[in-house]
Amino acid sequence: MMKDLALSKVYQLLEPGPVVLLTTARKGRANIMTMSWHMMVEFEPPLIACVVSNRNYSFAALRATKECVIAIPAVELAAQVVEVGNCSGRHVDKFERFGLTPTPAELVAPPLVAECIANLECKVADTSFVNKFGIFILEVLKAWIDPAPKNPKTIHHQGYGRFVVDGEMIKLKSKMR
Amino acid sequence: MMKDLALSKVYQLLEPGPVVLLTTARKGRANIMTMSWHMMVEFEPPLIACVVSNRNYSFAALRATKECVIAIPAVELAAQVVEVGNCSGRHVDKFERFGLTPTPAELVAPPLVAECIANLECKVADTSFVNKFGIFILEVLKAWIDPAPKNPKTIHHQGYGRFVVDGEMIKLKSKMR
Repeated sequence: MMKDLALSKVYQLLEPGPVVLLTTARKGRANIMTMSWHMMVEFEPPLIACVVSNRNYSFAALRATKECVIAIPAVELAAQVVEVGNCSGRHVDKFERFGLTPTPAELVAPPLVAECIANLECKVADTSFVNKFGIFILEVLKAWIDPAPKNPKTIHHQGYGRFVVDGEMIKLKSKMR
Repeated sequence: MMKDLALSKVYQLLEPGPVVLLTTARKGRANIMTMSWHMMVEFEPPLIACVVSNRNYSFAALRATKECVIAIPAVELAAQVVEVGNCSGRHVDKFERFGLTPTPAELVAPPLVAECIANLECKVADTSFVNKFGIFILEVLKAWIDPAPKNPKTIHHQGYGRFVVDGEMIKLKSKMR
């Protein structure tokens, strides 16, 4: 059951660098891809930069509709996340094939992913770098979090299917936001 | 003892999203900052996007000299990494204060950080997004790795001084590079 997350807390989900899912929708059909090249750009309103290559089937939908959802999976979803990255939405309904549940978003057409621990409804805020680098600047319009899992662990891609899972948590006296 | 790392492997260090250090040098004086907002943009030659705010003392040096080193610390360096982020190079020689050893790079003026597990010599490749978003596009010219630590663990910032340390490693059959 997803609940509202304050936009000021969004960076805490993405700054650690987890593998995420990106959903798009076009002509009544939703798609989903795996993405690891993203970073925060601003705290609030939250701005995110991400790379979506024009070799990805999601590229055309993202550029045309200027909407997406970033869904953050926990480690329990790792196998599906990799399978989503191994095939193209050109040929496959990935939600159906991998047992992922598309759920209506509130402000954008692409769906949330019910099995993920957080979902970020985004609009494309800037496309100046799309042609040169494949970089989209996204603004998060609304954020959802599943409060049920305590200290969920995300995964981080080290290349060629090797992932490191979140381990120990440490606290240090920091002035860093 | 740092050894050459093939440029094609650089993304495997940064894609997981570790907290890194960024060194710059200007007018004979080196400085160092902590950075968590970065992402890969291209495999090879490796391109990296990162956000350096004009509130950071390193901003002016990076923009003027167009050179930097990205140094990747392991968890053993976490306390120093946070302290580096807690003060400004405007007032402090952070290398000296925090016991970090600047080591000459080969192709750029900013120094490597001897205590880090990897160092990436970079030039600024594009500044089109600096004014609007603080985003610098860096090209990695040369990469160094310390082969001594086996499976070094990096840290990922979750906000307000909370860091998650690399945990378990999992392998899945992936076509993702």
